[in-house]
Amino acid sequence: MKIVKAQDFDLRREVEYGTAEQNEAVRAIVRDVKKEGDAALLRYTEKFDGVRLEASGLRVTQEELQAAYDQVGAAFVEAIRAAAVNIRAFHNRQKRNSWMDLQPDGSLLGQILRPLKRVGVYVPGGKAAYPSSVLMNVIPAQVAGVPEIVMVTPPATGGTEGIDPYILVAAAEAGVHEIYRVGGAQAIAALAYGTASIAPVDKICGPGNIFVALAKREVYGAVDIDSIAGPSEIAVLADDSADPAYVAADLLSQAEHDEMASAILVTPSEAFAQACRAEVERQLAELPRRDIAAASVRDYGAVILVDSIEEGIGVINRLAPEHFELIVEDPMAYLGLVENAGAIFLGPYSSEPVGDYFAGPNHIIPTNGTARFSSPVDVDDFIKKSSLIYYSKEALLQNGATIMELARREGLEGHARAIEIRLRKEGKAGVNDDNQ
Amino acid sequence: MKIVKAQDFDLRREVEYGTAEQNEAVRAIVRDVKKEGDAALLRYTEKFDGVRLEASGLRVTQEELQAAYDQVGAAFVEAIRAAAVNIRAFHNRQKRNSWMDLQPDGSLLGQILRPLKRVGVYVPGGKAAYPSSVLMNVIPAQVAGVPEIVMVTPPATGGTEGIDPYILVAAAEAGVHEIYRVGGAQAIAALAYGTASIAPVDKICGPGNIFVALAKREVYGAVDIDSIAGPSEIAVLADDSADPAYVAADLLSQAEHDEMASAILVTPSEAFAQACRAEVERQLAELPRRDIAAASVRDYGAVILVDSIEEGIGVINRLAPEHFELIVEDPMAYLGLVENAGAIFLGPYSSEPVGDYFAGPNHIIPTNGTARFSSPVDVDDFIKKSSLIYYSKEALLQNGATIMELARREGLEGHARAIEIRLRKEGKAGVNDDNQ
Repeated sequence: MKIVKAQDFDLRREVEYGTAEQNEAVRAIVRDVKKEGDAALLRYTEKFDGVRLEASGLRVTQEELQAAYDQVGAAFVEAIRAAAVNIRAFHNRQKRNSWMDLQPDGSLLGQILRPLKRVGVYVPGGKAAYPSSVLMNVIPAQVAGVPEIVMVTPPATGGTEGIDPYILVAAAEAGVHEIYRVGGAQAIAALAYGTASIAPVDKICGPGNIFVALAKREVYGAVDIDSIAGPSEIAVLADDSADPAYVAADLLSQAEHDEMASAILVTPSEAFAQACRAEVERQLAELPRRDIAAASVRDYGAVILVDSIEEGIGVINRLAPEHFELIVEDPMAYLGLVENAGAIFLGPYSSEPVGDYFAGPNHIIPTNGTARFSSPVDVDDFIKKSSLIYYSKEALLQNGATIMELARREGLEGHARAIEIRLRKEGKAGVNDDNQ
Repeated sequence: MKIVKAQDFDLRREVEYGTAEQNEAVRAIVRDVKKEGDAALLRYTEKFDGVRLEASGLRVTQEELQAAYDQVGAAFVEAIRAAAVNIRAFHNRQKRNSWMDLQPDGSLLGQILRPLKRVGVYVPGGKAAYPSSVLMNVIPAQVAGVPEIVMVTPPATGGTEGIDPYILVAAAEAGVHEIYRVGGAQAIAALAYGTASIAPVDKICGPGNIFVALAKREVYGAVDIDSIAGPSEIAVLADDSADPAYVAADLLSQAEHDEMASAILVTPSEAFAQACRAEVERQLAELPRRDIAAASVRDYGAVILVDSIEEGIGVINRLAPEHFELIVEDPMAYLGLVENAGAIFLGPYSSEPVGDYFAGPNHIIPTNGTARFSSPVDVDDFIKKSSLIYYSKEALLQNGATIMELARREGLEGHARAIEIRLRKEGKAGVNDDNQ
């Protein structure tokens, strides 16, 4: 883990958009599923997942869900329920109402907020199947009031009839309404365009491999999609008051995700930097996923020395990290200075896994510097707004001339006439310049 | 204007993403500006706009702004100010606060809402330069608290030193902080990556031609962008209580925008349909932009006959139109049924131009059926959120075991250890199963 002076350290990396071949393959799959529906869906499932299904077997049954509960054990169910309670409580606080502004002239303006009607959540198969990600994708949609939440996940990943039982239990606890055993680009196409077995959705979210990511980009426009996440990141700003063993453990909890994950320490103390680096080496040696974590630390890890906490916050604002831990004396004193960070963890007990699994805020957080302009997943991502305009006759008569002035200035005479025809019929002909 | 029975009428059209040549040209421009900065910016400005500028001449001066005010006349300034007051008032009601949830165990969770730091607004040149669009893009950013709002617009479109004075006055009234005379893909690249003269922004919004749209897609990720709008649309649901002349004028006010604009009437009354069609023909003949409007009505206009208002609302929900006028007796009675519409105009006096220019809600509204999942531009588009987690020692000791259970279930031992190391040091070793 290299130790460097504060400088223009840039966390951002080029985003992978897939090869031309991958893009072409995905386009063909999407086109086929759009055209042929279930037939293509089943064909690609056999081809890629090695599982031969009937259309009637796509949907996971209540019996399978029950069997999953029997498999996972009570400790897991209790833990996932405790997490779901917290996540639901946090997201419940984000709910907003439709609102109206009533004006003295009788007009009424407002915004109507409604949940999306149908949302699809992709859950990867194999080792990337994380029950916590199911909660984090589904609960905000459920709290928003989305009446139809659909999950798709590839078959043949072991467990209940090919689907991981922990994923099934997490889906049931989070409030998923329908589950289909289908994955890859073909699942994304089915969600976007619908088949006889799977009705189309309005938005697709959830992580996936490169084919899933490319398919989401391909169907965007027909449906909404979430953003495509880059490798995970943590930046810790700590001073001598922090415990190097805690900080090292937090850095490694991020590094173990992925060889491309990034774990960065920013500190004004060279002694702390050295102590933390030694702790990273010591803990790394004992970590089951040490090969992954070591590669991450070697290639994307760093310790950045700064002259002050304030300068350190400046480095953080430039990095705009996904996760930011601030472990200094009186961290609240610096909160106002933090401009760019997806999630902010304050003090020695707010270890990142607290947020990954349990506290309540969402763990789907902007990566790759995009916290400068985007936000963790929340209820707003499953809400759409409509503007409401009820204009009274009085309001139109009062303001019609001004509206016509603006329309004619833009050369849009038809717009002006839509107002003028009303002013004339309502007896205001010839007084079109009363506001001028 | 064809009259058709209610059916699976689909307003959606294939979105234009540009030819391979256009894409390649845009990629080259973006690459050059990213690499060479002002030199490339000035070179492309000379090439495409035919204007030779120095870097020092890119920024519009206070003197030019003052000259623009002298050119436009008092009636326009008064009208644009009246509109800005309403737009600002409506968007002010959308502002939200950061919030915290204080828990009895001393923990604190919340969301911090902050404005984006720097936003770029593209304004097209020539006839597509609409002062109202300047207000609609800039005011939400200004109300959100964005401290640096930058406008770019191509030179040589007539008026003050090459920039339309109405655009300059609208920019000044809306609250733009910097204006640069540069357009096209090169302007988008400058906003995204910065040059010596133009500092980079966090988000780019505003309409433009195909080169601008492709450039926005190209730089997305480095910065945020707004969505790329399709042709404009209106759907009117009206019964016999409506005035056919009003409805026809409103349909035409949309049709005059663009040959590809869409104006659709939905009605349960065949007599009203006939009367409205006759009015469209009559008014069309007198419209200055009748060639454009006639093409729009011919190719994308329709009257859809339904059996009831309720069925009509069902058609509207399938169309998910950008603009929806509901001109029936007691329109409020049907509002709860409207699921998909970008902006809803109720009653005979809420003509669409009222919303385009003046009432206050934004006129940048989802097109092409995307109102199913997206929303008009508002203050939220210029806000980013950070999650806040301050976990107390008590909260960690209480919940640590549950967090570890979930982390280990996902095979992420490093996550579990980041918790465990704290539990051990704080004297909870060996009690890791207290929640199970």
